[in-house]
Amino acid sequence: MAVGSGKVVALAPIKGVRIGVANAGIKQITRADVVLFELSADAAVAGVFTQNAFCAAPVHIAKANLQTFDQVQAKRYLLVNTGNANAGTGEQGMRDAKLCCQAVADKVGSQAERVLPFSTGVIGELLPTAKISGVLDEAISSLESDNWRAAASGILTTDTRIKGHSVSFDVDGKTVTITGISKGSGMIKPNMATMLGFVASDADISASDLQQLLSQASEQSFNRITVDGDTSTNDACMLVASGESGVKIDADTAAYALFQQQLNALMLEIALQIVRDGEGATKLVKVACENAASVEEALAVAYTVAHSPLVKTALFASDANWGRILAAVGRSGLQGLNIDTLKIYLDEVCIVENGGRAADYTEEAGAAVMAQDEILIRIDLQRGDISDAVWTTDLSHEYVSINADYRS
Amino acid sequence: MAVGSGKVVALAPIKGVRIGVANAGIKQITRADVVLFELSADAAVAGVFTQNAFCAAPVHIAKANLQTFDQVQAKRYLLVNTGNANAGTGEQGMRDAKLCCQAVADKVGSQAERVLPFSTGVIGELLPTAKISGVLDEAISSLESDNWRAAASGILTTDTRIKGHSVSFDVDGKTVTITGISKGSGMIKPNMATMLGFVASDADISASDLQQLLSQASEQSFNRITVDGDTSTNDACMLVASGESGVKIDADTAAYALFQQQLNALMLEIALQIVRDGEGATKLVKVACENAASVEEALAVAYTVAHSPLVKTALFASDANWGRILAAVGRSGLQGLNIDTLKIYLDEVCIVENGGRAADYTEEAGAAVMAQDEILIRIDLQRGDISDAVWTTDLSHEYVSINADYRS
Repeated sequence: MAVGSGKVVALAPIKGVRIGVANAGIKQITRADVVLFELSADAAVAGVFTQNAFCAAPVHIAKANLQTFDQVQAKRYLLVNTGNANAGTGEQGMRDAKLCCQAVADKVGSQAERVLPFSTGVIGELLPTAKISGVLDEAISSLESDNWRAAASGILTTDTRIKGHSVSFDVDGKTVTITGISKGSGMIKPNMATMLGFVASDADISASDLQQLLSQASEQSFNRITVDGDTSTNDACMLVASGESGVKIDADTAAYALFQQQLNALMLEIALQIVRDGEGATKLVKVACENAASVEEALAVAYTVAHSPLVKTALFASDANWGRILAAVGRSGLQGLNIDTLKIYLDEVCIVENGGRAADYTEEAGAAVMAQDEILIRIDLQRGDISDAVWTTDLSHEYVSINADYRS
Repeated sequence: MAVGSGKVVALAPIKGVRIGVANAGIKQITRADVVLFELSADAAVAGVFTQNAFCAAPVHIAKANLQTFDQVQAKRYLLVNTGNANAGTGEQGMRDAKLCCQAVADKVGSQAERVLPFSTGVIGELLPTAKISGVLDEAISSLESDNWRAAASGILTTDTRIKGHSVSFDVDGKTVTITGISKGSGMIKPNMATMLGFVASDADISASDLQQLLSQASEQSFNRITVDGDTSTNDACMLVASGESGVKIDADTAAYALFQQQLNALMLEIALQIVRDGEGATKLVKVACENAASVEEALAVAYTVAHSPLVKTALFASDANWGRILAAVGRSGLQGLNIDTLKIYLDEVCIVENGGRAADYTEEAGAAVMAQDEILIRIDLQRGDISDAVWTTDLSHEYVSINADYRS
């Protein structure tokens, strides 16, 4: 199951970024499972990574290698495999990730430090390095700019459809393009980044500015979605700026603000595509907490509601069960919550006020909202002027089936 | 579904405590749904209540009335109804709870303040006070000591079986008895108390000592269980000491320590009966965190694992998926966790060490543990000398069915 049509716009190529794909048969799947990005020597690269204390071997290597990127001007590579997360694999996992980077470097005449490895899939099994090395020639020979859709497919695991988006906008009469793809549908409560996201632009942006832009965009997108509250060991999102458009974007300019705005929107789009394809999802639910005293407070309430199994099963049943929402708000840990002034809405329908069911609320009005594919739960705390929101899914039979059958 | 046989020992009567039951037809059920406890004038009473910020009307009234119990010596009453939680019902809910207390007082020639109301069931619907008042004569006429089993049945909601336990032990050559019952199977992550628990003893204990005993016992039992992480608006547990055994138990004595020990064991037993009957439960799982730096740290790890939908669905599938356990530990918020020294066991089988799957671990050994009804997940942090544990269930299709169909 998944919410909505899953339609993805045409993914525009980004000059300076070429992509190759290959099928290594890591999990006996018949589609591509290895993706190689080649970034031009001028490209700046930024990344955000999982905050899970037990991050996977490739995350360690990618973070370390990324640190050295500013030191020399040379082509860089992002090597992605699906089907195996190379997580919980100890020292052998570190050696395996490095070995794959070295294999790429050997093939293209580069150095292992210029390759960032990314893995997603089963935790706790050793990476089949020979299978991956064995298809690098195929991946390299297929390198081309217009391969984003193939890459979007090549990084999937339990996802039922590809995720991606592309935008173009004008800066000083020149066109800047951003294209991004993502994957993930379970173990989704990213903290700093999604499962995997790869975003590139042809704008010319310094590495340090790029990191700022990415951090802010992640905070407003990947860090606001949750399927099951489980943060992966492998989350990573990379942002590349090739500079090939000739448009230089500096901090504290109108162009920078525009780029941030466009990047935020694109990353929110590919983050929400992940939620819509959440394991067993039948609904996309935005939980907004308004008029809180702080961001922490707003997010505590929003996440408690978004993670409540009782709220999530009621959403699956299309049941406007405001009592479960109210109970979840009540246990979200806020001191001095006042039930009498709090209000809860489904879209524009007020369901809770004055400590109980809203006087003019009708089951019919609630049911009409719950019948929708996309639902807004809005909690007005009336304690301050801060608002924030997270996006999640319902909890369905299919979620249980997927996760009782699949070993992730 | 439920775990184990569900066998409950004979529930011994407690002198000084009489119980009546009646069927008010609150939710068109054919069994008793109103239970009335009559406590002798000498009885001491203690209580712990939900910490949900939005506690139900009866919780407010019960807490307030309990405060006045020390002021006069008179019979007290506990009035329990199932089928309606009288939560999220605003001012009307407060009036309704008081009205029911007054109705009991009128029937028995007492005062409303000497009655504590308890409600469990649907949230957000007004209490059918006429139905409850209408069966009070029946409840009062059925008052007798040996009615604990009928009471255990009369307080159930989605529970599939009764919960109760009874112990007797000697103090200075005289016999002391404790009997308790509980209910609850969903919206279970008590904080201070379970859904509903009623425990009584014939020991002679002061009200202040009784509160201490109850608080400590709750902390080690009801406050260590979780089915779905959702804390109810109505949780309450009462402890009564009638004094009828003639055994006086004072603080700082061996008898007090013995009573505490027996009470802890009894309350853990009736708490675990709730977990075994957790909605859709097929397994009882103890998640122990050993060698933590603090209780907070141990509980953060244990609850994160116990609430992880991915761990819970793996338990349902009897899949020894240590990667999901490791990932949950990794996101539990502990600073400076070291994956290389941490160990994870299923019962006595070591599944994780040195940052990955234990060298001598076999799938067969893990599968053998997972096939059991009751499973211990033991996480050895090697960061200190504090250990703690929580108990939970797996996440099954039936959990989704129950909560997508039933309006709680």
